[in-house]
Amino acid sequence: MRAVWLENQRLGFREDVPEPKLLKGEALVKVRLAGICGTDLELVKGYYPYCGIPGHEFAGEIVQAPSAPRRIGQRVVGNINVACGECPDCRAARPGHCRNRCVLGIKNRDGVFADYLSLPLQNLIPVPQTVSDEAAVFAEPLAAALQIQQQVQIEPAASVLLIGAGRLGQLIARTLASVTGQLTVVARHRSQQVLLSAHDIGWIQEDGIRDRAFDIVIEATGSPAGFTLARQAVRPRGAIVLKSTYRDPEGSNWHIQLSSLVVDEITLVGSRCGPMAAALDQLEKQRVDPTGLIAKRYFLHDALAAFKHAAAPGALKILFQMAP
Amino acid sequence: MRAVWLENQRLGFREDVPEPKLLKGEALVKVRLAGICGTDLELVKGYYPYCGIPGHEFAGEIVQAPSAPRRIGQRVVGNINVACGECPDCRAARPGHCRNRCVLGIKNRDGVFADYLSLPLQNLIPVPQTVSDEAAVFAEPLAAALQIQQQVQIEPAASVLLIGAGRLGQLIARTLASVTGQLTVVARHRSQQVLLSAHDIGWIQEDGIRDRAFDIVIEATGSPAGFTLARQAVRPRGAIVLKSTYRDPEGSNWHIQLSSLVVDEITLVGSRCGPMAAALDQLEKQRVDPTGLIAKRYFLHDALAAFKHAAAPGALKILFQMAP
Repeated sequence: MRAVWLENQRLGFREDVPEPKLLKGEALVKVRLAGICGTDLELVKGYYPYCGIPGHEFAGEIVQAPSAPRRIGQRVVGNINVACGECPDCRAARPGHCRNRCVLGIKNRDGVFADYLSLPLQNLIPVPQTVSDEAAVFAEPLAAALQIQQQVQIEPAASVLLIGAGRLGQLIARTLASVTGQLTVVARHRSQQVLLSAHDIGWIQEDGIRDRAFDIVIEATGSPAGFTLARQAVRPRGAIVLKSTYRDPEGSNWHIQLSSLVVDEITLVGSRCGPMAAALDQLEKQRVDPTGLIAKRYFLHDALAAFKHAAAPGALKILFQMAP
Repeated sequence: MRAVWLENQRLGFREDVPEPKLLKGEALVKVRLAGICGTDLELVKGYYPYCGIPGHEFAGEIVQAPSAPRRIGQRVVGNINVACGECPDCRAARPGHCRNRCVLGIKNRDGVFADYLSLPLQNLIPVPQTVSDEAAVFAEPLAAALQIQQQVQIEPAASVLLIGAGRLGQLIARTLASVTGQLTVVARHRSQQVLLSAHDIGWIQEDGIRDRAFDIVIEATGSPAGFTLARQAVRPRGAIVLKSTYRDPEGSNWHIQLSSLVVDEITLVGSRCGPMAAALDQLEKQRVDPTGLIAKRYFLHDALAAFKHAAAPGALKILFQMAP
């Protein structure tokens, strides 16, 4: 089949990749749309030593399901963590943190920038009829945005600062705008600012951030500079939600002062994947319409151009669609 | 008056220190007992550039109170943070985080290793009659221990690991033993282990810690090694409470992997001073009896010996009592 291939931090397009072999309980999914995420860009930069097909955001259709043939034809999105079901974390109802897990397109499991992918049937969630492929492909990052509310209690009167107004930041902003009346987003690029204004969400530039002013700060840039800003902006006894995986800076001389977290009684909250069903529910009820975030679509054989586009400053969502 | 004096990281004993001059609303307190805390030892090591009388744990008696003469003779302990009452943090009911604050014996305000100290009357809390000076002098660190429960919800079934069984660790252990049935304490020294066993609190050595096994880990050593242990011991989606101020390691090459906090969705909670009234309440109800933690008493003129004793590995609480 056709697929994007990542090996030794080099991206390429191949037409000779074998289709996934199904294990017990798995289904074969034909990919309809797939999205490039910040994590994919980090993988190419070497954030994690991955070799194989990248990509984990998709909307697709089940085309083989030996153990559940009636699911063939279903439009689905997928939970990207494939758990063993037997380790202490799985037994403690944390399958997303299974210590033996594979992660679609990120760890030990081929991803979605291909004609087909495979996932266990229990990872595949049907897409409601009224939700388009273009919206459903955002289910995974939208779930990650919703995870913030699962982890941190956000009161309606809470002042919230979101640092980062890119692909993920825009989704986070939209999910939070209905939760707090005091959301401010740090947006660097004009295109990001326009999108926020169109949704009546207030934005500022980095130099407009007041020190020690925000109850909750969400760091969605994944950069040491973003963390430094977050630390300055949060009030004592406030919380910083870390919503990006950070590539360790080279030389590892980036230093967080733990003492200052103690003195100011700051809470840091690491936040990763979120509830896919809740994301689909938001899409079905049209509480969030992410389709305006699509910047451009590419075919798989244009993978290099697609990744280059996605890595450009301020770029929004880049999708792969399958050539006939 | 007599006082311990710290200047340029050098400790000394002086008899020529002027008595505190009272500002409006303040009282003069005759010190009866004072305790040496880990923070005092860190100040001597240069953790913070402090010059003056150190010490912040005390039990004393009000001897002058121009604006509230009826309080003269009261036995008191004190809230160590002196707030301005006007900054945004004070107005937001966070006086302990006042941005203009002085901190008794720690920042811009002479401390308690002296014949007398001064504090605003509102910082001075009466000691119940049945609570001895020997117990009351632990009110400040006991409050710091209780603060953990104010910040983190600890379910009875939660497995909790406490790293550090020194002065503060022993108090934390006793406050948590009644909250969770699954408390384990990492205790390095035989004397610490004996104290824990006497209170039916389970302890282990460092090499006995299971990885990813604890819902909540409390780090009370203030060392990078303690943090590393905490990080290994906490389960995904668990919490690490930072209960010590960390002196930044020299060379600042100590590096926390923020990415791993995100991947495992760990919460870090900085925790500092706590509720003094709740601490006195625990002492009055004899829920905690800290007096067994007293290792030895010294007079002020033996300050060097007292600090040396307090800094010895495994040393418990060292008190100053006033020579006649």
